[in-house]
Amino acid sequence: MENIGNQRTDLASEAQRMLRNGAKDLSPLPGVEAREEVRDGVSLFRVRVTDERGAKALGKPVGRYCTLEPGGPIPRGDGRFPQLARTLAGVIREMLAEPGGPFLVVGLGNEAITPDALGPLAARGVLATRHLKRAGNPLFARFREVSVCAPGVLGSSGLEAALQIRALCGEIRPKQLLVIDALAGAEALGLGCSFQITDSGIAPGSGVGNDRSPLSRESLGLPVLALGVPTVIDAARFGDSSLHGMFVTPRDVDELVRSAARLVAYAVDLALHPSLRFEELSALLE
Amino acid sequence: MENIGNQRTDLASEAQRMLRNGAKDLSPLPGVEAREEVRDGVSLFRVRVTDERGAKALGKPVGRYCTLEPGGPIPRGDGRFPQLARTLAGVIREMLAEPGGPFLVVGLGNEAITPDALGPLAARGVLATRHLKRAGNPLFARFREVSVCAPGVLGSSGLEAALQIRALCGEIRPKQLLVIDALAGAEALGLGCSFQITDSGIAPGSGVGNDRSPLSRESLGLPVLALGVPTVIDAARFGDSSLHGMFVTPRDVDELVRSAARLVAYAVDLALHPSLRFEELSALLE
Amino acid sequence: MENIGNQRTDLASEAQRMLRNGAKDLSPLPGVEAREEVRDGVSLFRVRVTDERGAKALGKPVGRYCTLEPGGPIPRGDGRFPQLARTLAGVIREMLAEPGGPFLVVGLGNEAITPDALGPLAARGVLATRHLKRAGNPLFARFREVSVCAPGVLGSSGLEAALQIRALCGEIRPKQLLVIDALAGAEALGLGCSFQITDSGIAPGSGVGNDRSPLSRESLGLPVLALGVPTVIDAARFGDSSLHGMFVTPRDVDELVRSAARLVAYAVDLALHPSLRFEELSALLE
Amino acid sequence: MENIGNQRTDLASEAQRMLRNGAKDLSPLPGVEAREEVRDGVSLFRVRVTDERGAKALGKPVGRYCTLEPGGPIPRGDGRFPQLARTLAGVIREMLAEPGGPFLVVGLGNEAITPDALGPLAARGVLATRHLKRAGNPLFARFREVSVCAPGVLGSSGLEAALQIRALCGEIRPKQLLVIDALAGAEALGLGCSFQITDSGIAPGSGVGNDRSPLSRESLGLPVLALGVPTVIDAARFGDSSLHGMFVTPRDVDELVRSAARLVAYAVDLALHPSLRFEELSALLE
Repeated sequence: MENIGNQRTDLASEAQRMLRNGAKDLSPLPGVEAREEVRDGVSLFRVRVTDERGAKALGKPVGRYCTLEPGGPIPRGDGRFPQLARTLAGVIREMLAEPGGPFLVVGLGNEAITPDALGPLAARGVLATRHLKRAGNPLFARFREVSVCAPGVLGSSGLEAALQIRALCGEIRPKQLLVIDALAGAEALGLGCSFQITDSGIAPGSGVGNDRSPLSRESLGLPVLALGVPTVIDAARFGDSSLHGMFVTPRDVDELVRSAARLVAYAVDLALHPSLRFEELSALLE
Repeated sequence: MENIGNQRTDLASEAQRMLRNGAKDLSPLPGVEAREEVRDGVSLFRVRVTDERGAKALGKPVGRYCTLEPGGPIPRGDGRFPQLARTLAGVIREMLAEPGGPFLVVGLGNEAITPDALGPLAARGVLATRHLKRAGNPLFARFREVSVCAPGVLGSSGLEAALQIRALCGEIRPKQLLVIDALAGAEALGLGCSFQITDSGIAPGSGVGNDRSPLSRESLGLPVLALGVPTVIDAARFGDSSLHGMFVTPRDVDELVRSAARLVAYAVDLALHPSLRFEELSALLE
Repeated sequence: MENIGNQRTDLASEAQRMLRNGAKDLSPLPGVEAREEVRDGVSLFRVRVTDERGAKALGKPVGRYCTLEPGGPIPRGDGRFPQLARTLAGVIREMLAEPGGPFLVVGLGNEAITPDALGPLAARGVLATRHLKRAGNPLFARFREVSVCAPGVLGSSGLEAALQIRALCGEIRPKQLLVIDALAGAEALGLGCSFQITDSGIAPGSGVGNDRSPLSRESLGLPVLALGVPTVIDAARFGDSSLHGMFVTPRDVDELVRSAARLVAYAVDLALHPSLRFEELSALLE
Repeated sequence: MENIGNQRTDLASEAQRMLRNGAKDLSPLPGVEAREEVRDGVSLFRVRVTDERGAKALGKPVGRYCTLEPGGPIPRGDGRFPQLARTLAGVIREMLAEPGGPFLVVGLGNEAITPDALGPLAARGVLATRHLKRAGNPLFARFREVSVCAPGVLGSSGLEAALQIRALCGEIRPKQLLVIDALAGAEALGLGCSFQITDSGIAPGSGVGNDRSPLSRESLGLPVLALGVPTVIDAARFGDSSLHGMFVTPRDVDELVRSAARLVAYAVDLALHPSLRFEELSALLE
């Protein structure tokens, strides 16, 4: 089994492809189930890590990983945006532990570092409904109770994201949480336009940022979904030691991150509030 | 006793001046002690609301209010900035409940609304040391353990600032907290350059923003300092009902808020870490 | 005839209303023609200053002034946005000197001062086609040749907007130019949602910013349209001398300015490229 | 002579080092003079391309290239910042064609793309004095007449930077112009902290941005200095075709660019106004 140590990717779909491409032997990987389907015209890659053998091979914890790969960035003005948001919402909805009850959405990352800003940017477009429902606003009776937080960065707050989330969970008692984060990928063409949802949480050492306290059912005591989009390739992959700590990004990474964050926000809102139509949501967000 | 209802100001110094100017009778106000001194060349106005009569007269809770009024904005490049930061730090230090132990600084307000951005902007310049001290970094042994948070706005998170702060306090157990917020004032010349520190916390209905859950010893269970700077005048003061919900701001309010936030950050850092010299701090912040 | 000196408004519609409301005599103002119509469900106010008597009475140069007043802000997500953009485009189109030929759009103002940022923000959404047409891009054959500039502020460049525009006009030889600028208004309810188009250019002393070199057919040698939106009320109107240089703005002026700038950009694009449909434009801009 | 085509660097110092390191033969390159000195404790690398042989070998036009390499980023708060700004100012001053007369500073690049924002960010810190001197402000009698522009990007304006600059030069008749731009480099350690000044202008195809109209004495008719800082490495250097159009940047490129832009602004101001002391300048800029 190859060591993919210097080929770091946070995407299970890419890790699986790299393993297959490097393998002489075409028999299935033990502990890994993978299959690809086309949903609403878009490629959906499902990987299931079933045991520790698979976890070691892929470098990913046991769990389910779904990656939607539309094949290129789809900005808000693109005619395919509404359907893609609905498709991604459908994938998120499949992973939700419970259809109702309080829910917490967390946008991880550093807004001042472009490729790491995905989480906070997406969080801005997620509808917070908790205060409206608690105030008895009847317009929001059909909405799920959603709280949103963006914990910022350890260097600015002194507080790990995990600590902040744990503290909030004590107050709002969510049934589940969804963490949105920028990832490091391996494939240039997937940057900004691969959307991975997993029920395995966020492992230390993954993502783009520095604060790597784990966010998972084990550390937080409730089911944790993670929705990630690759925005960089770790330059260390190119084997040049002077590139340690450097990123490869597309020239238009600022635009790509904004665009991906917008799609993520729409999809999360549609997933959490099934009665909400795309057009209604657009009127609320724009 | 005059009704200052339509002359709303969050500054005790201004409220006291308005009452005195409107009064026919020059005898002291019952329940209010006020005196002015000059410290390091700058006017320092002290008001003490000693009982409910004073609270009602001034429209401010019982407590101590110190306002430093340098007479105009002092940007970072001004030669008087270092001394003013030290003087303000001294005033803050007088109000600290305890010289050591964990401390939490909160930047209240909405960064997307210029005059309300003071709190979050100032919070960015406050040194967070908690993670460094916990990691045993010896360079930070002489620093106080400080955590920093900016709870954002209710409409974006669904979570009242008070709830978020209470949740964090449960995790980090601070000895005291300091809340930084933009205020509504009454005097045009004081906008951006009056610095009020009070041990009475933040009352519902004050400040520039909307989320008006009280932040005080009563609501949070620990001593709460509030450091505020007026950045707007409530236009309702001008008696024209069409101006309801409107603000009077100086033309250069963006610059004024940035400048005031910088001074506040420097002063808070100097107050919390008495061994830190201005020059060292400048090297850390710029 | 009343002096409206301390009731400064850059909007001819408001100036006319103030004069009428203050007048004992209901006979028409000499030199001023005014009428209101409803177009596509929105109020359209037309004022024509026909001679110097009218210019003096209204404090506005001779020329045509059309003001569209939808009655409240219409953000991009509002169902009425597309029609309002088309209606405003129609009003702009009526004022265009020639249907074809090179055209220059200028976004005046200071992006760092929220209420003055309307011009530069709107300019970002105006489609620049000059380089594409010159490169022979066939997709742009049906588009008018449009250049866009945002001259920034005198204090940052040392260069008056008029000088920069005159210099560019020498190179690109436009048939006409359109200047977008933030205005000072008199009516709180019109802030951010009154859209004035005039063929009289921009007079010294109007607008929100400081650089008040006139921009007109006289100073630039070609027809100048000005499209303005009031974003502030000059606080000096309230008669308190301490408010000199201060502005009254709505609490949500940041959002209001972004929203108005977006509508202006859509309308300008639709006016300049009559074959462009709203949906196509949305796909290009979002 | 090696082909350094896939080792693109805009820095003459790096190109020269790459050629030397790859060469078997240690005799001097024909048409290239290179020497390194230490100035004020900092490495200063001088390359002179004397003829077409040298131009072809280095891939740089004939001219002088001075690169200051402090060995790491020096933010404003660093004690070495003032001296480094003075040293860089000295290097710029050596290249000035004339000590007085109107001068134009141009910040090239796209502010919305982090590594390309160096030029516009630096331009903000360059003191514009033209309007003040023309207004007869006596405080500015000892200052040189400086205008500043940031032409923005071709896609937004439809106007090449060269066209805009040529237009302005017709109005303000500068003696010389200085163009500030972000560069592509080859050495990771030099990113954000190598400062190249050249009298050869800006060649098509260099820099980080897309608008590559040449800016030189030939195209503009007056002497052109270019001050550049590498902020990216072209990922195409790593020989992977999927990386075409991608950049390698440090994780903290946002901070690095801000920091370098600040140093550049200070140095340009000190170079253009020799009577200005660092402390005075700091008071004006901060």
